[in-house]
Amino acid sequence: MKPYAELTKEELTELRKELKAEYKEYQGRELRLDMSRGKPSIEQLDLSMGMMDVLDSDSDLTCDDGTDCRNYGVLDGIAEAKELLADMMEVRPEQIIIYGNSSLNVMFDTMSRSMTHGVMGSTPWCKLDKVKFLCPVPGYDRHFAMTEYFGIEMINVPMNEDGPDMDMVEELVASDDSIKGIWCVPKYSNPTGVSYSDDVVRRFARLEPAAADFRIYWDNAYTVHHLYDRGQDHLIEILAECKRAGNPDLAIKFASTSKISFPGSGIAALAASENNLVDIKKQLKFQTIGHDKVNQLRHVRYFKGIHGLVEHMRKHADILRPKFEAVVEILDRELGGLGIGSWTNPRGGYFISFDSLEGCAKDIVARCKKAGLVMTGAGATYPYGKDPHDTNIRIAPSYPPLEDLREAMELFALCVKLVSVDKLLKEMEQQ
Amino acid sequence: MKPYAELTKEELTELRKELKAEYKEYQGRELRLDMSRGKPSIEQLDLSMGMMDVLDSDSDLTCDDGTDCRNYGVLDGIAEAKELLADMMEVRPEQIIIYGNSSLNVMFDTMSRSMTHGVMGSTPWCKLDKVKFLCPVPGYDRHFAMTEYFGIEMINVPMNEDGPDMDMVEELVASDDSIKGIWCVPKYSNPTGVSYSDDVVRRFARLEPAAADFRIYWDNAYTVHHLYDRGQDHLIEILAECKRAGNPDLAIKFASTSKISFPGSGIAALAASENNLVDIKKQLKFQTIGHDKVNQLRHVRYFKGIHGLVEHMRKHADILRPKFEAVVEILDRELGGLGIGSWTNPRGGYFISFDSLEGCAKDIVARCKKAGLVMTGAGATYPYGKDPHDTNIRIAPSYPPLEDLREAMELFALCVKLVSVDKLLKEMEQQ
Repeated sequence: MKPYAELTKEELTELRKELKAEYKEYQGRELRLDMSRGKPSIEQLDLSMGMMDVLDSDSDLTCDDGTDCRNYGVLDGIAEAKELLADMMEVRPEQIIIYGNSSLNVMFDTMSRSMTHGVMGSTPWCKLDKVKFLCPVPGYDRHFAMTEYFGIEMINVPMNEDGPDMDMVEELVASDDSIKGIWCVPKYSNPTGVSYSDDVVRRFARLEPAAADFRIYWDNAYTVHHLYDRGQDHLIEILAECKRAGNPDLAIKFASTSKISFPGSGIAALAASENNLVDIKKQLKFQTIGHDKVNQLRHVRYFKGIHGLVEHMRKHADILRPKFEAVVEILDRELGGLGIGSWTNPRGGYFISFDSLEGCAKDIVARCKKAGLVMTGAGATYPYGKDPHDTNIRIAPSYPPLEDLREAMELFALCVKLVSVDKLLKEMEQQ
Repeated sequence: MKPYAELTKEELTELRKELKAEYKEYQGRELRLDMSRGKPSIEQLDLSMGMMDVLDSDSDLTCDDGTDCRNYGVLDGIAEAKELLADMMEVRPEQIIIYGNSSLNVMFDTMSRSMTHGVMGSTPWCKLDKVKFLCPVPGYDRHFAMTEYFGIEMINVPMNEDGPDMDMVEELVASDDSIKGIWCVPKYSNPTGVSYSDDVVRRFARLEPAAADFRIYWDNAYTVHHLYDRGQDHLIEILAECKRAGNPDLAIKFASTSKISFPGSGIAALAASENNLVDIKKQLKFQTIGHDKVNQLRHVRYFKGIHGLVEHMRKHADILRPKFEAVVEILDRELGGLGIGSWTNPRGGYFISFDSLEGCAKDIVARCKKAGLVMTGAGATYPYGKDPHDTNIRIAPSYPPLEDLREAMELFALCVKLVSVDKLLKEMEQQ
């Protein structure tokens, strides 16, 4: 098939008719498909059911240092859990605070604390006239929503194939001391799947922000979430690199086991420099006596260390890989060479990013919805829900069974075609 | 024995010698006793070990409405957990949000949200010159510590035998719109064990605060934590009473299962009016996708409803009751009639409150420590750690085994005598 841009008006009109008929057929099927969120599938959840057997009423819930995990105490997490998550996050256990069930919550609390109490002694952000964050786009909608909630102004920074546009980041942070942070999903990024290159990470560690309380929010959500055994993306460890660069306090790293064990019932962690940890614990001790140590112990005893966890992630990959491959295969087959869209082919993470012709994303998502397929809302991958070119759509292949996913992607491709033809015809009419 | 105040200088000096010798003997024993915190004992923790068997790898972790508890979602808790905690908190399930593992954390977040975003549309507290909280004293140190952390000025309100001094509360909240809240532990209060009378609760519900964003922080920590089957303290339900009084949004209620199942691994909840809940969820949805539903399900399936939970609390009471009775028995026996201290005799909760002669509490706690007994720091039960009369000491009988507790209380009584004699002798010398 020729690129759509090379088709005549007649050809496009004819094509439109065919696509419409096909779409109508889909509508008749009364589908109910949901690809809106990066949720693990039931099959993936089943992988961790053994975790429910790890502790029973005969278990000794004492951890290595003698702490009874059933009682109050241990503000920053039991040593075994720190070790497991430190290995996962490629840092030392001393750099870790173990939190509750959600890294999103940890990021929120980090931002909230900065609002009310500043960062390592700085003026609380709520006392400032203006606070800004840099947001590589497309990015994670929940990062942006939280930032907006705190009244922080968001500045879009384009994502390139090796990470954010670092020229722009360097210039902005150096020139504007109201810029207090940047959101990063550095590995298998949400939604592009891009992992930051060594050069990008090194430049991050060497930023010279005008604001002393500027922090890189390094959301390492997909640190062990590879799809392939070979050719895994590897990231320079940001905290060590910051230290090497003489900026030890510049970054705060977040992660959790939500997409490893159970979403919502895993354990989350933060890693940072000694100075940052002291500052954070100053707040944390007023907020809680400690997080769920029994669940920490459950995770430690189930995975038996980082090797067990990595093996466990292989099983996730075996379930996820065919789904990612099906999405790319169908997009290649259905849309390849048509010049009406581009898509990423990540080697890990939870998302594939699709870019349509300008001004088509919203219409494509609406079309999908009308035929029973819920996608992540167009615009969601941008601050304020506003995609300036209306092109980006996040594809979340994890949750639906493979058969449903194939059907969903075929419908999606059809909607892309239909909306693109409409756009091209409209442009012709306007000329 | 005569009251110490009636002893002559010679009698006191002789007594001092005897007490000193006795104290020296204690020091020789190299004791290591800790009564500083309201921690459940190992025996109590063992009561809930069955909870570890409730879920296993064959369990269906689907809840009544079909939600898979293993996956993301359900911001405010699963229906079954809402029902259980609603029954415990004497409210309707619709009035409940289920949180994570700590009600302290929920209170912190409530205060933090008020700082950054105000209350139901009010000016964020961080934008105000002055924010104040009323603090019934003696009270819970962690309430006060958190309030101080947020830079909120604390005003002491005396606790009477039926609750806080309501004349003072009514007058203060009506006259000063910078007063934004009051801390209450209304049942088996920390540390006095007092439960608020019907009259006090009714007056709370009818407060007419100058500040529209004034909230009663109703920390119902010991709602089902009775020591006796008969003669249990009963509290008028505050939310219903506020509604009746035409003040539906005035109070926010907090509770958790920390001292029911496992401290740190239980579930916490907040109960409030519809308006408050809407306001709170507006924030919560940015903070998290949801709390630990598997743990919610574990609690629900273990307790099988409020009846099971109440039965479970009887077992706690059977362990705690002898300890409380031992404390009171030893205080009665050792200090009764001496006029050097008074103490409470609560019918529930986790604490007994002791009041020494003026200016003696710090010295008593220090004396105890030097002989190997750690008590809650004197002053801890007051804002800023400052007990204006230096009299109050919180006694936490729950953790030590009964034998240790008896030994600890005998040592404590001895220290009270010793410090009191010292004080009386010093006063004589100064006259």
